[in-house]
Amino acid sequence: MNIPTVNNLKRVVIIGAGFAGLQVAKKLKRDKFQVVLIDKNNYHTFQPLLYQVATAGLEPDSIANSIRKIIKKKKNFFFRLAYVHYINTKKQKVYTNVGELFYDYLILATGSVTNYFGNRNIEHFSLPMKSIPEALNLRSHILQDFESALLTKDSKIREKLMTFVIVGGGPTGVELAGALAEMKKYVLPHDYPDLDIKQMNIHLLQASTRLLDGMSEKSAQQAFKNLEELGVNVWLDCLVKDYDGQIVFIDKNKKIESYNVIWAAGVKGAMIKGFLNEDMLNSQRILVDNSLKTLRYNNIFAIGDIACMITNKSYPNGHPMTAQPAIQQGNFIANNFNHYLLDKKPIKPFRYKNLGTMATIGRNKAVCDFPYFRLKGFLAWFIWMFVHLVGLIGFRNRAIALTNWIIQYFHYNKSVRLIIRPFNRKNNQLKKN
Amino acid sequence: MNIPTVNNLKRVVIIGAGFAGLQVAKKLKRDKFQVVLIDKNNYHTFQPLLYQVATAGLEPDSIANSIRKIIKKKKNFFFRLAYVHYINTKKQKVYTNVGELFYDYLILATGSVTNYFGNRNIEHFSLPMKSIPEALNLRSHILQDFESALLTKDSKIREKLMTFVIVGGGPTGVELAGALAEMKKYVLPHDYPDLDIKQMNIHLLQASTRLLDGMSEKSAQQAFKNLEELGVNVWLDCLVKDYDGQIVFIDKNKKIESYNVIWAAGVKGAMIKGFLNEDMLNSQRILVDNSLKTLRYNNIFAIGDIACMITNKSYPNGHPMTAQPAIQQGNFIANNFNHYLLDKKPIKPFRYKNLGTMATIGRNKAVCDFPYFRLKGFLAWFIWMFVHLVGLIGFRNRAIALTNWIIQYFHYNKSVRLIIRPFNRKNNQLKKN
Repeated sequence: MNIPTVNNLKRVVIIGAGFAGLQVAKKLKRDKFQVVLIDKNNYHTFQPLLYQVATAGLEPDSIANSIRKIIKKKKNFFFRLAYVHYINTKKQKVYTNVGELFYDYLILATGSVTNYFGNRNIEHFSLPMKSIPEALNLRSHILQDFESALLTKDSKIREKLMTFVIVGGGPTGVELAGALAEMKKYVLPHDYPDLDIKQMNIHLLQASTRLLDGMSEKSAQQAFKNLEELGVNVWLDCLVKDYDGQIVFIDKNKKIESYNVIWAAGVKGAMIKGFLNEDMLNSQRILVDNSLKTLRYNNIFAIGDIACMITNKSYPNGHPMTAQPAIQQGNFIANNFNHYLLDKKPIKPFRYKNLGTMATIGRNKAVCDFPYFRLKGFLAWFIWMFVHLVGLIGFRNRAIALTNWIIQYFHYNKSVRLIIRPFNRKNNQLKKN
Repeated sequence: MNIPTVNNLKRVVIIGAGFAGLQVAKKLKRDKFQVVLIDKNNYHTFQPLLYQVATAGLEPDSIANSIRKIIKKKKNFFFRLAYVHYINTKKQKVYTNVGELFYDYLILATGSVTNYFGNRNIEHFSLPMKSIPEALNLRSHILQDFESALLTKDSKIREKLMTFVIVGGGPTGVELAGALAEMKKYVLPHDYPDLDIKQMNIHLLQASTRLLDGMSEKSAQQAFKNLEELGVNVWLDCLVKDYDGQIVFIDKNKKIESYNVIWAAGVKGAMIKGFLNEDMLNSQRILVDNSLKTLRYNNIFAIGDIACMITNKSYPNGHPMTAQPAIQQGNFIANNFNHYLLDKKPIKPFRYKNLGTMATIGRNKAVCDFPYFRLKGFLAWFIWMFVHLVGLIGFRNRAIALTNWIIQYFHYNKSVRLIIRPFNRKNNQLKKN
């Protein structure tokens, strides 16, 4: 992969430039390690705001940031745009589409991918939202559907075009449902005066008996209430069995007809070939000890969504697959490498500190659970905005996102309703008129 | 196409929502006409700033604007996202990918497309920059090339990857060359410290003996000087004969090896099938009389790049294919339709008023030709910025573009160096390393 070898300097290869990988890459001491960061994109994605890209609120540049721009100190640092397809743990080598690379230490920070739980139909016909291209596809898809709805004289087809089904009642599903409901309320009636926007239906389907499983019961109820007020049909205890591109099949013989199913029902670890299945959980996360080291290999560590550190009491299935554990684990590993690893000093175990969780439902509406108190309504929404704004990397991205949000707040508008790359339907269900 | 017919109201169909078509659509009186605007995109593109999208200075949302958002008065107005493939002038019908439509009056405002002058190789291997997806492809292509240059050990390949050839010395070519030269100077050395950026070569090839043919000789010389100062190799009197994906063949047996050829050497009218060749000029622009009516059909008009109105003295080949004539012709047609057409009153012929032309070369550098005076340097650059900022549609786009420009000015940076959709090379010339 054309990276020079430096004498007496161990090479740390980090796979993945998400919250976890980026944090390590930034903090590792370059006088102790040569750092190689590999990602399949040349940018870091601020995933918590992906739904705003999908719903025409923000352009990708506000939530994406060039990795080469983020990492300013270039000494002993190498970024490579590459896709890793195999790891040979014996030879200590990473194999990518642009060549192979030896590592002294390997840090897996590959994150997670959409989990369809083995259902090929759903994988084929539904729309995921885990990456920027996927969010842009979703944006195109939503807008194209309204353009198509205008053209058809068949009311059955129009109904299916204007019915949106979001599967999964976690933060992603809730935030997406809220944003769609706001488009229905404020934007679409102006854009499509010759359509009856009342015909637009938004369904949020959740398999368990409550929304926002990671949050408090009260916040879940508040989110439910806010969504219903916005006109979202929230279905709890409702398991999706199949989807054929036209009909969502739900247990108990219920079904919903829709051309638009957005799948936000689960994620699994983005594992790379080369590891043993017995080292992973069902959700394809690799098991690590309390120093975030893999159980089998002394020179391979895992952090973020891909890592599963089981603590008996609080996190029997590993930490939540969100930004916070990823960032904290990234910091922990950097600190471990910088101060303990080479000297073989013992280190304290990783301990996750939950700083709170939050979800926004729409204008002036959000819920926040902090360790000692809860918030809802305008204040929660304002804190949500502040936290997400500060989370964005770089002054420019913050300035642009803030400008967009302020204008949207006062104009009741979504700015970027652009179909730049039309999305090709996978299902040929639409007849020509 | 599912558009209602209204008694006693003539239907005007406008094809194309560029500067010309949009102007008519906005200004036609809806109590006199039913207006149908058709475009293959759901957004208007501010083409003069496309080169900034291609060189990672702006995201598309700053220079694109949803057509449904722009046209606020919805009464008797219909926008349809469609691609027109044929016009039947006898039946007075427009045929599109989403159905057909009858017109009482037709206004052609389809603009122009890249002109390869019949050379299939150049069309296949070079990169155009006439639309937002093309500009984004170019952005990905430029960034991917530097990533590839990092990986290769073959200096010959690296040289070809880092050589950029822009063909065409009009405003597009000049502005693109300037922006690339600024990337070379301010951005790339920081992003790619392990590459020798001095190896990057930027060539601007112009077929005629001077740059900026539409501008004054002095401004052309100034642009030439500024580009050379920025390190661009400007070749005048230099005709490109062919390009095979690796070598640009120039007359007099010269050649340049490069994987990156950007074609900005010409445009031609974006004609639709259904018209006679004898009604068009070589550049595929349709001939119109001095009321912008086509010579053969009393109910078909043409405006903007697609229209060719020949005035013997000043514009023997039609007006310049730029934004200004398009906007003025759009206004003229709207005025004609609103006040003269239905009453069959005689109208004054269209007269183009040249308000000035300008081109920017880089930071603090631009040239402006106004009717009575010329400007260069910082003031010209500032006026260029102001004019382009005001030209953008909508407060939001202006705010976002201005924020980007201010940050770039002080940070010497290009913000959006993102490869969101990787560009697939058409030529398999790159060996794996």
